[in-house]
Amino acid sequence: MPNTIADEHAEFTWPVRVYYEDTDSGGVVYYANYLRYMERARTEWLRALGVEHETLRVESGLQFVIAEVNLRYARPAKLDDQLSVGVKIAGFGRASLTLDQTVRRADGVLCNARVRVACVDVQRFRPCPLPKQIFRRLT
Amino acid sequence: MPNTIADEHAEFTWPVRVYYEDTDSGGVVYYANYLRYMERARTEWLRALGVEHETLRVESGLQFVIAEVNLRYARPAKLDDQLSVGVKIAGFGRASLTLDQTVRRADGVLCNARVRVACVDVQRFRPCPLPKQIFRRLT
Amino acid sequence: MPNTIADEHAEFTWPVRVYYEDTDSGGVVYYANYLRYMERARTEWLRALGVEHETLRVESGLQFVIAEVNLRYARPAKLDDQLSVGVKIAGFGRASLTLDQTVRRADGVLCNARVRVACVDVQRFRPCPLPKQIFRRLT
Amino acid sequence: MPNTIADEHAEFTWPVRVYYEDTDSGGVVYYANYLRYMERARTEWLRALGVEHETLRVESGLQFVIAEVNLRYARPAKLDDQLSVGVKIAGFGRASLTLDQTVRRADGVLCNARVRVACVDVQRFRPCPLPKQIFRRLT
Repeated sequence: MPNTIADEHAEFTWPVRVYYEDTDSGGVVYYANYLRYMERARTEWLRALGVEHETLRVESGLQFVIAEVNLRYARPAKLDDQLSVGVKIAGFGRASLTLDQTVRRADGVLCNARVRVACVDVQRFRPCPLPKQIFRRLT
Repeated sequence: MPNTIADEHAEFTWPVRVYYEDTDSGGVVYYANYLRYMERARTEWLRALGVEHETLRVESGLQFVIAEVNLRYARPAKLDDQLSVGVKIAGFGRASLTLDQTVRRADGVLCNARVRVACVDVQRFRPCPLPKQIFRRLT
Repeated sequence: MPNTIADEHAEFTWPVRVYYEDTDSGGVVYYANYLRYMERARTEWLRALGVEHETLRVESGLQFVIAEVNLRYARPAKLDDQLSVGVKIAGFGRASLTLDQTVRRADGVLCNARVRVACVDVQRFRPCPLPKQIFRRLT
Repeated sequence: MPNTIADEHAEFTWPVRVYYEDTDSGGVVYYANYLRYMERARTEWLRALGVEHETLRVESGLQFVIAEVNLRYARPAKLDDQLSVGVKIAGFGRASLTLDQTVRRADGVLCNARVRVACVDVQRFRPCPLPKQIFRRLT
């Protein structure tokens, strides 16, 4: 039951500032760039837990890849906005984990996503169970 | 019933080549960049139907924004790959349309998404019904 | 004499972390992305001096645009690298300022650039002298 | 004498359309994205000459990297603009080639750059002379 698991987990948050590079001529943050923000937060969450991409790659021959993303856009972010990006575990599969990610500004939620991250081998991109020591750090 | 509607509509496709800018150090196309490919295909589909972003903006004070995206990643694209991006109407709401978008390579589907596009006014980003003449062109 | 002026100015630095979004399949940071890093540093330098893009735009009808960039790439940055981006005034023109920007890692300089930033009006992109109060803050 | 060499070489051009992803909230193409356009044109120019990145990498253990870029921005490109990006050889070094690249719209030049491309080995990023068969194709 993912919900039960989710409730047990604290949310990790990471600050993000909006620069010109993130916006488009509609005057708001380009819709694909929220995925960049979410990946920064996931990376920093893993780093805080002692899991670095390159170490995982070199030591275990493993890599995280995104299998599914379900995004809801509520309100647009604008140039110079100070945002916060949350990461929270929603559940575990055999070779994947599911995360809830939320992009917030002082006045509320701008965007949220449920993201399924799969663990694969670097060579052939086949699903591999999460290494036990990483699973332990995440839970 | 979106399915019924979808069956009536032909798929529009647009070619996309993978360049260094699209890839990441995992050796594959960065996951957010499929959203860029999908937006190029939507833009060209609209252009083929005679609907240009700037004209819509200036003449009607309207803009399309993305409200929801549900993405499934099946296999990764790589540098130099020649891809094709499809757009197909899946259904209409009062102030939105839902599209099915598929990124393919010669050997099969790499990624697909259901995308809900909302029509909003340029000033306040409030939902507005699609102008009738655009609705007619789409159907 | 730009050199004399440059010596008088302290360097502002801003930290940047390298994420997957910044890299390409060559295994290093994509060459255009150093310009994104440099813009973040310029924006934060201006913010530290009390000059925000949106305020400048709304209050003075002015905008900074890049007129020239001369980039030298010495060594590549990689995933997870912690970088520092410097901004230093190299000189002033009538409607522009010239900056020296350097991207560094603990082991040395990775990339440097001389950037000429022009001040233009928002409507027609014509050169405009820097507002006196901004000039004073910069010097 | 680079000028002499340049005059001998024809210009290769590649079409580029401006999408939302390329623009920023200033209403124009973000300054770093011209480097993405230029790289697309270089890649297609090499492909037209029978040189593919991956083949070069796998067969010769070599890779092209950018050593220097000198950019001049004349006028901004906007959403939906149809551009053309030129590539022309300006000269050869021992382990590099210098290119003149120009981004044009129907009404004139928007941006031009002189780009020095170095040939390096994939492992250590050390300069390597251009393979003779590639040199022959380029000249």
